[in-house]
Amino acid sequence: MAAQRFSVTAGELARFLGAELRGDAEETVTHVAPLERAEKGALSFADAAHARHLPSTRASVVILSEADAARCACTRLVTDRPLLAYARATARLRPDPPAVPGVHPTAIVHPTARLAPDAAVGPYCILEEDCLVEAGAVLGPHCRLGARSRLGAGSRLVASVDVGADVTIGRRVVVHPGAVLGAEGFGYAHDGTRWHHIAQLGGVRIGDDVEIGANTCIDRGAMEDTVVEDGVKLDNLIQIGHNVRIGAHTIVAALTGVAGSTTVGGHCQIGGMVGITGHVHVADGTILAARSSVTGTIARPGVYSSVLPVVEVRRWRRLVALIHRLDRRRAGEAPDDSVSGEPHDRPAP
Amino acid sequence: MAAQRFSVTAGELARFLGAELRGDAEETVTHVAPLERAEKGALSFADAAHARHLPSTRASVVILSEADAARCACTRLVTDRPLLAYARATARLRPDPPAVPGVHPTAIVHPTARLAPDAAVGPYCILEEDCLVEAGAVLGPHCRLGARSRLGAGSRLVASVDVGADVTIGRRVVVHPGAVLGAEGFGYAHDGTRWHHIAQLGGVRIGDDVEIGANTCIDRGAMEDTVVEDGVKLDNLIQIGHNVRIGAHTIVAALTGVAGSTTVGGHCQIGGMVGITGHVHVADGTILAARSSVTGTIARPGVYSSVLPVVEVRRWRRLVALIHRLDRRRAGEAPDDSVSGEPHDRPAP
Amino acid sequence: MAAQRFSVTAGELARFLGAELRGDAEETVTHVAPLERAEKGALSFADAAHARHLPSTRASVVILSEADAARCACTRLVTDRPLLAYARATARLRPDPPAVPGVHPTAIVHPTARLAPDAAVGPYCILEEDCLVEAGAVLGPHCRLGARSRLGAGSRLVASVDVGADVTIGRRVVVHPGAVLGAEGFGYAHDGTRWHHIAQLGGVRIGDDVEIGANTCIDRGAMEDTVVEDGVKLDNLIQIGHNVRIGAHTIVAALTGVAGSTTVGGHCQIGGMVGITGHVHVADGTILAARSSVTGTIARPGVYSSVLPVVEVRRWRRLVALIHRLDRRRAGEAPDDSVSGEPHDRPAP
Repeated sequence: MAAQRFSVTAGELARFLGAELRGDAEETVTHVAPLERAEKGALSFADAAHARHLPSTRASVVILSEADAARCACTRLVTDRPLLAYARATARLRPDPPAVPGVHPTAIVHPTARLAPDAAVGPYCILEEDCLVEAGAVLGPHCRLGARSRLGAGSRLVASVDVGADVTIGRRVVVHPGAVLGAEGFGYAHDGTRWHHIAQLGGVRIGDDVEIGANTCIDRGAMEDTVVEDGVKLDNLIQIGHNVRIGAHTIVAALTGVAGSTTVGGHCQIGGMVGITGHVHVADGTILAARSSVTGTIARPGVYSSVLPVVEVRRWRRLVALIHRLDRRRAGEAPDDSVSGEPHDRPAP
Repeated sequence: MAAQRFSVTAGELARFLGAELRGDAEETVTHVAPLERAEKGALSFADAAHARHLPSTRASVVILSEADAARCACTRLVTDRPLLAYARATARLRPDPPAVPGVHPTAIVHPTARLAPDAAVGPYCILEEDCLVEAGAVLGPHCRLGARSRLGAGSRLVASVDVGADVTIGRRVVVHPGAVLGAEGFGYAHDGTRWHHIAQLGGVRIGDDVEIGANTCIDRGAMEDTVVEDGVKLDNLIQIGHNVRIGAHTIVAALTGVAGSTTVGGHCQIGGMVGITGHVHVADGTILAARSSVTGTIARPGVYSSVLPVVEVRRWRRLVALIHRLDRRRAGEAPDDSVSGEPHDRPAP
Repeated sequence: MAAQRFSVTAGELARFLGAELRGDAEETVTHVAPLERAEKGALSFADAAHARHLPSTRASVVILSEADAARCACTRLVTDRPLLAYARATARLRPDPPAVPGVHPTAIVHPTARLAPDAAVGPYCILEEDCLVEAGAVLGPHCRLGARSRLGAGSRLVASVDVGADVTIGRRVVVHPGAVLGAEGFGYAHDGTRWHHIAQLGGVRIGDDVEIGANTCIDRGAMEDTVVEDGVKLDNLIQIGHNVRIGAHTIVAALTGVAGSTTVGGHCQIGGMVGITGHVHVADGTILAARSSVTGTIARPGVYSSVLPVVEVRRWRRLVALIHRLDRRRAGEAPDDSVSGEPHDRPAP
């Protein structure tokens, strides 16, 4: 059972969603649940992946399509796109927590910072010089908004978000806890012996309707800004390097890294743990399977992969050894002993 | 030499551990060290991997098994399981820092929050409405405990831990700095053009005796709770997606990601940088080598791997090219030029 | 156009860099930009990768080598190593933000903490017992410096950095937001059923001139210290396990993990998302391509890789199936059905 509770009738939901009600308008739901584990009082939805659970569901109210409407005896909300309607319903059922406009007395606000009258700044926040918090924007507790940075109208830093200097955040953006925006990019010059830091003089620009996951990092640019365009959704623990541009409405799953100066097109779908090297381009609309490694430009949209699924370890080691044997036979070479863990992972001495 | 110092005699340790003392009960140790680099005053232990260092060790006191007891001239604590005994010894030698019961004057506690009299709340903490801190629980500095969340008896948020709303944490749990529990899960509905957020109405439930590493993220569930069962140990920088369940006594190394709605069984051992796709199941007792990619359900426990160990780069490129040639020969196809980085990683233009 | 602005003449830069000025000493630059997108007022530089843009650049002042000096009509600063000179210029153009010496009134400083008179401690910092902040060191907002830890002369914790107990940080070190230094290492003993924590009694030692990226984690050692030597540069979201040693002047890109007790030599270059297993050694001067997996000791320096670049997914699946067929043919085995996602990633039931 979902942790968050509410109370709403099927009739109210039907009106809010513009869905066709079939059943009891007074049926009340208090929580959400997946069809197959729903009990009385639950709101649920059915799309193609779940419709087989309709005949047996105990949910009180289900959002579904006309094609599935006859498969369920409960109260139904019929709509063209059930998942989209469910998304809209959830936004109503759990509105963003009401933020009290005003600045918490423990927030430390530089005299040159500008705040809209209805902005909300939580406890222990730091607002640095010349920053700007627009109308309805919210900083949760323990956040920093750096010098000359902007938090756009209706945007929210949930908690413990660190925004450095010169970061521009658009409207209706949500940034989750632990995210770091505008940290110094990773740029060095080598003198033959040591690495010398190159100060990163660009900033970061985040568009409208972007969502940035927990502990995700977006570095500032070296000579120009790092850019995340409108509608981009970034999951947790993602690394976006300096000068990167992520195109509009691209979605990226957790633990993915995009190296410096790479541009990712719009409307891409990028799986988790994907690695994209620096200074390349990924075409608009590209789909990358989880764990893909992109080592060059992808010029044509398509679905790409390079993940190797697990197999039982003895088989795996035999397989790795086979590939190496095939290669050595072609090359007429002796085994390579420079890496002790190859071809299988013996422990080191 | 270890940073942390103490002073304890071999006799005291023998009594505490229930180990058999051989040697000088008054021998005093002040720090720990590995056998091979130990000096006078050091406590050490020997298991199978280290026993070869026993004859030459300079440690003052060593925890070891009967089988190894004759290999060392120093004072010995003989026990069936030396590593386990060493673990117990360390817990005595470095007890958790004493937390002063009470609420630091800078902590901001909602009037509806409930705290056990001996709970400790550190500086700059935020306790939101209806949260609960049980007996002996400790919040270090800069932590947040969200609305309706619970920190169980004897549990500790070390520092800078962000716990969102509706997160239930069991007893004797330790959460390390920067961890984020209960951030919004990554769920969207696509309207053909844009992604629409699905509010995540589930919470997070953490069992007893769980440990959660630094900067690890555990997202809240979409329709039900995300669950981490008793005794699970999670390393740093791990991503646990919405609705995931991690079974009891499973251990997971750093930088691993588990995608949404996947269930991992109990007593699994999961290496670092493992990726497990969404909506699958991993059988109880499964062992996954570091960097494994799990793209489907693992129905039978066993040891699985898909890691490719490094080789010298020219050999590696030749090997990748060979595999592609074998494949193309079978398929009767021309080379693929859609990805400029394939088969080797030329820089992009 | 870069976010950060300044005003400096070519003549001033030439003197500061010791570069030979060709052109107008009074030419003033106000920002930096890459050659190909520079406008009037921009400072830029040309190294081998960018020199082709020299004839058409609109930059006002360019740092370049003698070999390229005739390819550009603008004001030039001629020097042996343009990138190195550019790095030095940026450090002048954006000096570290001036930190006001002294302790912010909201910082909580243990009475036994020692601070140099010109150290700067920002708002909401926590300084624990017996810690030491040396001359010119800076703690930005929301930082913690743990018990007995030291922040060396001229070092800076940018913001929201958590430093645990017994962490020694050298001079001129920069630590970016969200980094966690000295969290408990990941060590457990198994009793046959459950995992028992081994308290980690070592600390962390960071050398001079080290840089540590956002949300990177460096765990404390088990029996000895975890060590990061002088001049090491660590990018964001990196995991350094307990007892690891990273040799001097090694550079590591984002999302890389180094497992416990491994030693990495000096002057290595380690790409992003590299995984290095525990208890192995990587030779001085080794170069690891992004996403490499190191499963054993690397005894000889060289360039190593094990990354598989993406290809179109149908081709990829065919390729994975081919490898498995080759292997089974050799082994005379039937297909393995223990992993439903192999050889291609069917969704699980």
